[in-house]
Amino acid sequence: MRYTLAEAKKLDAEDGLARFRECFDLPSGVVYLDGNSLGPLQKATRRHVDEVVATQWGEGLIRSWNTHDWIDLPSKVAGKLERLIGAEPGTIAVCDSTSVNLFKVLSAALRMRPGRSVVLSEKNNFPTDLHIAQGLIDLVDKGHKLRTVVADDLPGAIDEDVAVVLLTQVNYRTGKLLDMANITRLAHEAGALVIWDLAHSAGAFKVDLKGANADFAVGCCYKFLNGGPGAPAFAYVAPRHLAGLRQPLAGWLGHAAPFSFVDDYVPHPTIERLRVGTPPVLSLAALDASLDIYADVDMEELRAKADRLFDIFSSIVVPACPELELVTPLDPAERGSQISFRFADGYAAMQALIAHDVIGDFRGPDIMRFGLTPLYLTHEDVWQAASVLVKVMQDRLWDRPNYKILAKVV
Amino acid sequence: MRYTLAEAKKLDAEDGLARFRECFDLPSGVVYLDGNSLGPLQKATRRHVDEVVATQWGEGLIRSWNTHDWIDLPSKVAGKLERLIGAEPGTIAVCDSTSVNLFKVLSAALRMRPGRSVVLSEKNNFPTDLHIAQGLIDLVDKGHKLRTVVADDLPGAIDEDVAVVLLTQVNYRTGKLLDMANITRLAHEAGALVIWDLAHSAGAFKVDLKGANADFAVGCCYKFLNGGPGAPAFAYVAPRHLAGLRQPLAGWLGHAAPFSFVDDYVPHPTIERLRVGTPPVLSLAALDASLDIYADVDMEELRAKADRLFDIFSSIVVPACPELELVTPLDPAERGSQISFRFADGYAAMQALIAHDVIGDFRGPDIMRFGLTPLYLTHEDVWQAASVLVKVMQDRLWDRPNYKILAKVV
Repeated sequence: MRYTLAEAKKLDAEDGLARFRECFDLPSGVVYLDGNSLGPLQKATRRHVDEVVATQWGEGLIRSWNTHDWIDLPSKVAGKLERLIGAEPGTIAVCDSTSVNLFKVLSAALRMRPGRSVVLSEKNNFPTDLHIAQGLIDLVDKGHKLRTVVADDLPGAIDEDVAVVLLTQVNYRTGKLLDMANITRLAHEAGALVIWDLAHSAGAFKVDLKGANADFAVGCCYKFLNGGPGAPAFAYVAPRHLAGLRQPLAGWLGHAAPFSFVDDYVPHPTIERLRVGTPPVLSLAALDASLDIYADVDMEELRAKADRLFDIFSSIVVPACPELELVTPLDPAERGSQISFRFADGYAAMQALIAHDVIGDFRGPDIMRFGLTPLYLTHEDVWQAASVLVKVMQDRLWDRPNYKILAKVV
Repeated sequence: MRYTLAEAKKLDAEDGLARFRECFDLPSGVVYLDGNSLGPLQKATRRHVDEVVATQWGEGLIRSWNTHDWIDLPSKVAGKLERLIGAEPGTIAVCDSTSVNLFKVLSAALRMRPGRSVVLSEKNNFPTDLHIAQGLIDLVDKGHKLRTVVADDLPGAIDEDVAVVLLTQVNYRTGKLLDMANITRLAHEAGALVIWDLAHSAGAFKVDLKGANADFAVGCCYKFLNGGPGAPAFAYVAPRHLAGLRQPLAGWLGHAAPFSFVDDYVPHPTIERLRVGTPPVLSLAALDASLDIYADVDMEELRAKADRLFDIFSSIVVPACPELELVTPLDPAERGSQISFRFADGYAAMQALIAHDVIGDFRGPDIMRFGLTPLYLTHEDVWQAASVLVKVMQDRLWDRPNYKILAKVV
């Protein structure tokens, strides 16, 4: 059933999350459906970064490592992530990029399964994850193999050769969600460990690492978590793996006593042993401030609104645009927080859409992708965006570069 | 000969670098002699970071990857470093931390010397460099060994087992400078490669990687380069090594076509193959703006002033404070841009000094360290700081915690 504008407005009037929109500093007139790629700026984040630059760096100088506790800032930020991804206290390190963190936890995991030779992943996983795994396998040079299968074949592919199963919970193109608890259970039954990449999960819906009995996870803080472009990433290690954890990037801030400058490397007794070099304090400060909003967010309510946004968008676009093939599951239990369509002219169509202030993105070869981010999108925003997309498709606007829809479709 | 205040003031009046001081946003009343640990904020940097946050992130959102060319920002920043370290065009990558970059280039270098088993370094090298090397050796597990000798024994220790010589050009504690050209030549004669850590060199004086025929280098941008706390680091690869360079952190931004999302990893044809994940744009923006000042700096003039600052400080402190053992060479050709003293109560003495607004730092077990940074220090600043240190030492102020020197020593 096609949602009407009146229905969208009514949902906005009743929306318990509506109050969060004013925390964001969004450009006027734009509907931003790319928060799954780069989350927007919050007003408090802008103020905090300037404060850190001017006061902590400018006035405090080197003293701020102590007086503003820069040294423990990664740990403070990690604490704000715990509830969002269902992590036990003290199991998250905030540092480096997702790729570098994946290298660390995959190294650690392979060392825990010395007799096994396979890293199993999904064919359509985000390519970097596969490249990092292959780079590590080539470096270690002990006969490991990266094996990839399509998602449906994963359960049957987890055999006794598999050391580590490496998966992204939500597919970046289609938005399809893997069953974290079930796959983790199957892997454990076969004696394998599992690393979950939460790039498109963290901040989008409640992740339950502990409940799924996950071994390791990595994730990105600049998508749904709105931490700022290139915000530091995170890594999770289950408490049972922490004591024995060894990772090869043995940098000074992962040392038990970073400022003693002793010759022997002694890994920090806690999750901090995943840290390597000096954290990018300014980028980390932006993330720190950006995460505060989640303290007041009910993740169930967030997810329920994301599902309504999905329904509004699909109810308008799917019947009106037969050329667009919906590739995101209709069942909320099987998807993340995006809606994606396959369309051969998707790149051009997305450019036309962006020219009309509806910002989604394109992932080659043919996926038009829209992030559904309830903290700053209204139901009306999504209704409008869907209606503009219908207009772009029906009028084939990408073939008419000088044509502009002059007003929002109401 | 002890410099007088009048002489210091005269040197300031004639100082061609004096105009740069107003570019910095230093707290009033403080003499900052720790720019070798964390360089201070520039006014233009504060403005630029806020602009990047508010306009590029806030308004531009995802579009800024193209419209503000975030994707090539690391390469743009690298271009600003080339002259400072004597690097050929296109040989520097700006990314990650110094430690992570060291891991990459050491991996690459070891692969280029398959029949050799030793990584040779200096006993008193910054411990992280040794830890990263050991972490890599343990991971690769092919019988490599990390061998460390004191600096004077380096030439004799470079034998045909040595694959890579890994050295920091300026010792972080003593400020002693290694002879880059000579050691590189000896290493090459023995068939080894050399990695230079420029943490305490870049921005402090003119480094000549090309002239020394260096193979690889890494370095830090938040010390003498003033890039901000935890600013992204850099890595250098000599042009002759670039085509064959393989590094294990095969992340998407080091890929030849990052946005094609293909399954096979194809390293970028240029130095960009050292990149891994998404750069921390806000921290990188601070670095970008902070480096602009160097476009107008004559590095010979910078070095000459640093030497005068050294002479002023040492001429006042050395005769007046017999308890302080000068450990930095008096010969300018043998040192970086700092002055360090050994003193058993150095930690307490440094705290007393900082309480009097002269900020240096302490490196265990017994080193008091002062960075000499001519862009924002006046000759008078250094004269005053030295005089306060003499007062602290002569009155043993660290034994009298409630005692404050009420005015600057004039």
